[in-house]
Amino acid sequence: MIIVMASRNKEDVDHVVSKVEELGYKAHVIVGVERTVIAAVGDERGKHRLQTLEAMPHVERVVPILKPFKLAGREVRHEDSVIEIGPVKIGGGHFCVFAGPCAVESREQLFDTAKAVKEAGAHVLRGGAFKPRTSPYSFQGLEEKGLVLLEEAGKTFGLPVVTEIMTIEQLPLVERYADALQIGARNMQNYGLLKAVGKSRKPVFLKRGIAATINELLMSAEYIVSEGNPNVILCERGIRTFETETRNTLDIQAVPVLKRYTHLPVVIDPSHASGHWDLVPPMAKAAVAAGADGLMIEVHPHPEDAVSDGEQSLRLERFAELMRELEALIKLVGKTT
Amino acid sequence: MIIVMASRNKEDVDHVVSKVEELGYKAHVIVGVERTVIAAVGDERGKHRLQTLEAMPHVERVVPILKPFKLAGREVRHEDSVIEIGPVKIGGGHFCVFAGPCAVESREQLFDTAKAVKEAGAHVLRGGAFKPRTSPYSFQGLEEKGLVLLEEAGKTFGLPVVTEIMTIEQLPLVERYADALQIGARNMQNYGLLKAVGKSRKPVFLKRGIAATINELLMSAEYIVSEGNPNVILCERGIRTFETETRNTLDIQAVPVLKRYTHLPVVIDPSHASGHWDLVPPMAKAAVAAGADGLMIEVHPHPEDAVSDGEQSLRLERFAELMRELEALIKLVGKTT
Amino acid sequence: MIIVMASRNKEDVDHVVSKVEELGYKAHVIVGVERTVIAAVGDERGKHRLQTLEAMPHVERVVPILKPFKLAGREVRHEDSVIEIGPVKIGGGHFCVFAGPCAVESREQLFDTAKAVKEAGAHVLRGGAFKPRTSPYSFQGLEEKGLVLLEEAGKTFGLPVVTEIMTIEQLPLVERYADALQIGARNMQNYGLLKAVGKSRKPVFLKRGIAATINELLMSAEYIVSEGNPNVILCERGIRTFETETRNTLDIQAVPVLKRYTHLPVVIDPSHASGHWDLVPPMAKAAVAAGADGLMIEVHPHPEDAVSDGEQSLRLERFAELMRELEALIKLVGKTT
Amino acid sequence: MIIVMASRNKEDVDHVVSKVEELGYKAHVIVGVERTVIAAVGDERGKHRLQTLEAMPHVERVVPILKPFKLAGREVRHEDSVIEIGPVKIGGGHFCVFAGPCAVESREQLFDTAKAVKEAGAHVLRGGAFKPRTSPYSFQGLEEKGLVLLEEAGKTFGLPVVTEIMTIEQLPLVERYADALQIGARNMQNYGLLKAVGKSRKPVFLKRGIAATINELLMSAEYIVSEGNPNVILCERGIRTFETETRNTLDIQAVPVLKRYTHLPVVIDPSHASGHWDLVPPMAKAAVAAGADGLMIEVHPHPEDAVSDGEQSLRLERFAELMRELEALIKLVGKTT
Repeated sequence: MIIVMASRNKEDVDHVVSKVEELGYKAHVIVGVERTVIAAVGDERGKHRLQTLEAMPHVERVVPILKPFKLAGREVRHEDSVIEIGPVKIGGGHFCVFAGPCAVESREQLFDTAKAVKEAGAHVLRGGAFKPRTSPYSFQGLEEKGLVLLEEAGKTFGLPVVTEIMTIEQLPLVERYADALQIGARNMQNYGLLKAVGKSRKPVFLKRGIAATINELLMSAEYIVSEGNPNVILCERGIRTFETETRNTLDIQAVPVLKRYTHLPVVIDPSHASGHWDLVPPMAKAAVAAGADGLMIEVHPHPEDAVSDGEQSLRLERFAELMRELEALIKLVGKTT
Repeated sequence: MIIVMASRNKEDVDHVVSKVEELGYKAHVIVGVERTVIAAVGDERGKHRLQTLEAMPHVERVVPILKPFKLAGREVRHEDSVIEIGPVKIGGGHFCVFAGPCAVESREQLFDTAKAVKEAGAHVLRGGAFKPRTSPYSFQGLEEKGLVLLEEAGKTFGLPVVTEIMTIEQLPLVERYADALQIGARNMQNYGLLKAVGKSRKPVFLKRGIAATINELLMSAEYIVSEGNPNVILCERGIRTFETETRNTLDIQAVPVLKRYTHLPVVIDPSHASGHWDLVPPMAKAAVAAGADGLMIEVHPHPEDAVSDGEQSLRLERFAELMRELEALIKLVGKTT
Repeated sequence: MIIVMASRNKEDVDHVVSKVEELGYKAHVIVGVERTVIAAVGDERGKHRLQTLEAMPHVERVVPILKPFKLAGREVRHEDSVIEIGPVKIGGGHFCVFAGPCAVESREQLFDTAKAVKEAGAHVLRGGAFKPRTSPYSFQGLEEKGLVLLEEAGKTFGLPVVTEIMTIEQLPLVERYADALQIGARNMQNYGLLKAVGKSRKPVFLKRGIAATINELLMSAEYIVSEGNPNVILCERGIRTFETETRNTLDIQAVPVLKRYTHLPVVIDPSHASGHWDLVPPMAKAAVAAGADGLMIEVHPHPEDAVSDGEQSLRLERFAELMRELEALIKLVGKTT
Repeated sequence: MIIVMASRNKEDVDHVVSKVEELGYKAHVIVGVERTVIAAVGDERGKHRLQTLEAMPHVERVVPILKPFKLAGREVRHEDSVIEIGPVKIGGGHFCVFAGPCAVESREQLFDTAKAVKEAGAHVLRGGAFKPRTSPYSFQGLEEKGLVLLEEAGKTFGLPVVTEIMTIEQLPLVERYADALQIGARNMQNYGLLKAVGKSRKPVFLKRGIAATINELLMSAEYIVSEGNPNVILCERGIRTFETETRNTLDIQAVPVLKRYTHLPVVIDPSHASGHWDLVPPMAKAAVAAGADGLMIEVHPHPEDAVSDGEQSLRLERFAELMRELEALIKLVGKTT
C-alpha cells in the first residue's frame, strides 16, 4: 500500500508511520517535491486493511499495490487450468460450447433443443430450472421437474448438463441432477452461495455481475476456490453501461485481461450481452478471436414462444449454421473442440 | 406494449397481429409515414411477455408502456406508507435516522457508539453481524455473537435495531434479535432471500444494487410485498459510474423519482455513496432537502481502527454535530423526527 | 509517480530506475514482500510523462500521486474565488441564480421570461442564441438576432446575461453582447475554444461533460485559467449512467468534492440533469443544501411550445414559487443572495 | 411518437390530441386497460419536436419510434458505401488498416514508423499534428511542421495520410496536407466543426465520443453527410464505463449494430479502447471477426519514449507480427485488403 499524505509536517507523518508499524507493516517514507508518501511493506492477508487509514487526519489517499486474489491468480498457478465437466474439457486449448434454452419449459422443447445442439457440435447442455426473474409475476422455472428433464435430455443425447442454482437450499437437489453448477450474474456476490458451491465437487460456472469489475469477479472465484473447489469457469456476459441499443455492453477486453491475471477458463455469453439474436453470431466469432475458451449460447426451437429471453435465442438452424462458421475460426486460433 | 414493425407489408403485419391476439391481447394497427406500429392492449400480468415477439421476423422493437410494479406503486396506494420499527415511525412526514458502526466489532465499540448516536438524536441502531466482504480473507462478522450484542445495546439505549441478513438460513436467527431486516445492495436481486423476508413480519430495509435501475429496485420491493410483507423501506446508497473520486455516485434524483412512483419510504445512505467521511455531512443535508424520509449513517468511535469502512465512518462528535445541523433543515422541509 | 514492477529481478529494476533518472526524476526503490515498487520524485510539469513507462518490459503499472491541476487548485489559492458578472457576485458566500429559456425563440418569449425571473429574484439571465443540437434538422438558434435580444432584455430588466459560445469564430460577436460566456457540456474538451475564452476578459461558465471526471473538469478549467482568465464558474449538470428514468444522473457529490480541490465557484443545473421539470425543485434544494454556490434553471412561459427542452423547463409561476422556497434554505446554509 | 397519458380523462386526452394535430401530426387514440396512449403519425423532420409535450399536464411520457438519422441510414442507401482515401478503399468488403504514431514527434520517428507499417501491410498512415490533451501543460503537437512531415512520409512510402483536425481554422491547412480528416472523440459533438468538414471534399474519419450512444454517433455523421460530404468512416474506440482495468471498454457490439443501421464503414481502434499495448492484438482480431471494415492502430519505434500514449503503442515488430496473424482471419471473413 502507498499512503499519500495531505500534510508534509513531520509530526503528522510520524503519527501515520507508527500506526502503520503498529498494524504489522514496515514503513518507508519518501519525501517528494509536493507530497510525502509512505510505502507500507508487508503481506496484507490476515492483517488489518490499511485502507481505513484514510480515516486518519492528514492522510489524503491510500493506494493498493497488490491484486487481492491469490488462488485464482497466475502467481500461484502459472499454466492454464483445464476443467472437466463429465467427459468434456475446457481451458488450456480446449474450446467448449454450452448451448440450450434459457429456461426448461417442456420435455418437447428441451429434447428438440438438446438433439439439435448435440448434432451441431455443442459440448454441454444448458437450461434453467430455477429462474431469477426481475418480476415476481414472471415464470419462475419448473424447479425439480426441470432438473429431471435436464438430466434425462443430457443422458439421451450424451451431453453433460449445467444449470443455475439460486439458493443454498437448492444445492443438494441441483448437485444430484447436474454436472456443473451455474452462479448467475445477480448472485456473483452472494457470498453464502459462493461458499456453499466452494464445498461442492461439481465444477462451477460463475457469471460476472452486470456491474462487477474484473477484480471483483476474480474475488468471487477466490471465495469458491478458497473453500476447496478449484474448478471454476468464468463467464463474461455483458456489463451495464449507458448504451441502450444492446441489452448489455459485451466487455470483450475482459478476455485478455482475465487471461493475464488468472489460470481459470474464460467463457463469453453473447446471448445475454446482446439481448438480440442477430448480434449473437458476430459476437460469438469475436469471442473466439479474442481468445475465449468457450461460449454459452441460448437456443430455442421457437423463440417467439419462449417464456423468457426469446428475443436473444437462436433458432436451431441458425445455431447449427453458426457452429459451422466457428469451426475454421477455432482451428485458426489454435484451439481444439 | 407497442410493437414497431420493420416491414410495412400487410402479410407480415397480419402475422404479428394474430400472434398478439393468440396471446390474449387486442391489437390496434397504426400505419405511420415510415413505420407501422401495433399497439397491444391488455393486462400483461399472468400473460406471456410480448417482449419475446422481438424474436419474430419483421419486428423491429417492442416498447413497454406500463410500469411492471403494482403493489409497490402509487396506483394501488396513493398516500405515503408509514412504517414502524418498534416505536419508531418512518414515512409520511416522519423522518428517521439509522446510525451505528458498519460492523459490530466488540461490546465496547458498539455500546460507545449506541450511547453516542442515541444522545445525538438517532432513532434506530444499525450494525452488521454478518458482513458481505469482497474478499474471503476479510473479517466476515461476529455472527450470532454480534446479534446478541446488538439486541443488548438496543435495549440498553432504547433504540430498535436493524441488521443485514445474507442468506435464508440466517432468517430465524436474525428475526429473533433484530427489529428490522436489512437486504444489502449485493443481494437486491437475490430473489430467494426476498421471498423469505417477504414472509417475515419484520420491516425490511432494502438497499438498491449498485447497478440496479429504479425500476428494478421497485420490482425487488414488489417481490417482498407480494409475499405479504408491506413494510419495505427503500434505500439509495450510490450507484456505480465512471467517476472514481467517490466510492459510488449518489443518485439523489432517485428520491423524487421514487416518490413519484411509490408510497414506500425512501432513505439515503451517504456513507456508502461517498466512501469518505467528509462528504457525509453535505450529502446528508442534500438528502433531507431532496425529500428523503431518512438517513443511514455509519458512525465509529475510532474510524482508523475499524475492521471495515473506517474511511467513511463519522466520529461520534462529528455525528452529533451533523445531527444538530440537520435539525433546522428537517423542520424547514416540514418533517418531524 | 509510483511504478509497480512485474519483475523483482535486480537488472529489470535497474533498467527502469535509469530510465526514470534519465527523465529527470529521483528514484527510490522499495522492495516489498511480493512486489518491488519505484517511487519517482520530481515535479512532473514540463517533463516527460512517466505514464509511458508502462510500455517498458517488466513494468506492471504506473500510479500517479499528484493531481494534475495547479492554478484551479486550492494549493495555489486557498480561499474561495468570488467572481463578478457585471454587478452580480458568485462564490465565497454569494449565491447566484442563472435563469431563463433554453433557447431565445422570440422577443416576446424572452422578455416575458426575463421580467418574471427578475421579479422572482434571479440574478443572471441565461438563453441560447447558438444551440448545439444532436440533430442537424433541429432548430439551431437565432444567432446574432438572439444575442441582440438577450442584451436588450438584460438591460431592460437589469440582469447580466450569459450565453453559450460554440466556436472560436463566435467569440467577438458573443463578447460584444454577453456578460459571461458559457461553454457547453459537449465542448468541455474543445481545447481550441477553451484557449480562446481563456484570452477573453469575460467570466466563463464551464459545464461538465456528461462523461467527464471531476479531474477532467478541473483540467478544462486549468486550460482557461492558464491562458490568463481566472474567472471560471464550474457547473455540474448531470452525468451519463445506466439509469434512464432521468435524462442524466445529477452527481451531487461533485459539489463537496470540487470544493475540496478548487477555489472556483460551483453551480448545479438541475434542469439538464433531470430532464423533467418536476424534478427541478427538489434538486435545486438539494444543491443548496450540498453547498453549491449557485443554480442554473431553465424557465419558459409556455414549455409545451418550446423549440427545445420544454419538458425540463419550469413555468414562470413555478419558478417564482421555487425561489420563495429556496430563500430560507439559502439563509440556513449561511449564504447571501 | 407514442404519447403515454397519465390521465384517462377524456378532456385531458382531447387537449393533447388537439396539440398534436396543431403541430401537424395525425393522432390515433388507443384506450388500454390501464393507460391511454396517443400515436402521433407524421414525418418529424422540419416539424416541432413532440418530445416537448412531456411538459403538458397529464402526459406521462413521450416515446420516439423512428430513428432520427436519414442520409446515414440504410433506408436511404441499402448497400455498403465504399469510401476512397487516395487509392485505398474501405467498406463493402475492402478491409483497411490505419497505422502510425499517436503524435508526430520527429522526422526520424515518423519515417521509421511509416516505413515499417507500409512493409507490414498497412494502408493508411495516421499521426497527430494537433493533439487534444487533457492537460494544457502536455505536448500539444508539432502543428504545421507535423503536417509537412506527414505529407512527406506518406509520399515517400506510398501511404495516404489521415490526421486530426481540432478547430475550424485548421481546416484549410489540414486539407492541404492530408488525404482524410479525423474528428476526435472529444469533438464528436462539436457541431461547428462537423458542419465545416461536411463542406470539405476529403473523407472524414469520425470517432465515437466516450459517452456517445450509437444513435448520437450516427447523428454526428448525419451532420457531415447533410452538408454534402458522403464520405464518412465511423470509428468505435472504447466507451467510458465503471471498469478501470482498461482505459475504456471496447463496445465491440457497436460493429454489428452500426452495420444494421448504416451503410458507412466501421473501424475499430483497439489502441485507445484498451490503453495497453498487449490488449491490442486480441482486440484487433476480435474486431475483424465481428465484421469491422478496418482497424486504427498506434505504432511507435520506441513506445517508452513516446510523448503521448506510449503505453498503448505497438512496437514495429509486434505490429508486423499482428498483421501476419490478421491475414488469414481477414480472408476467413471474406474481406480483401
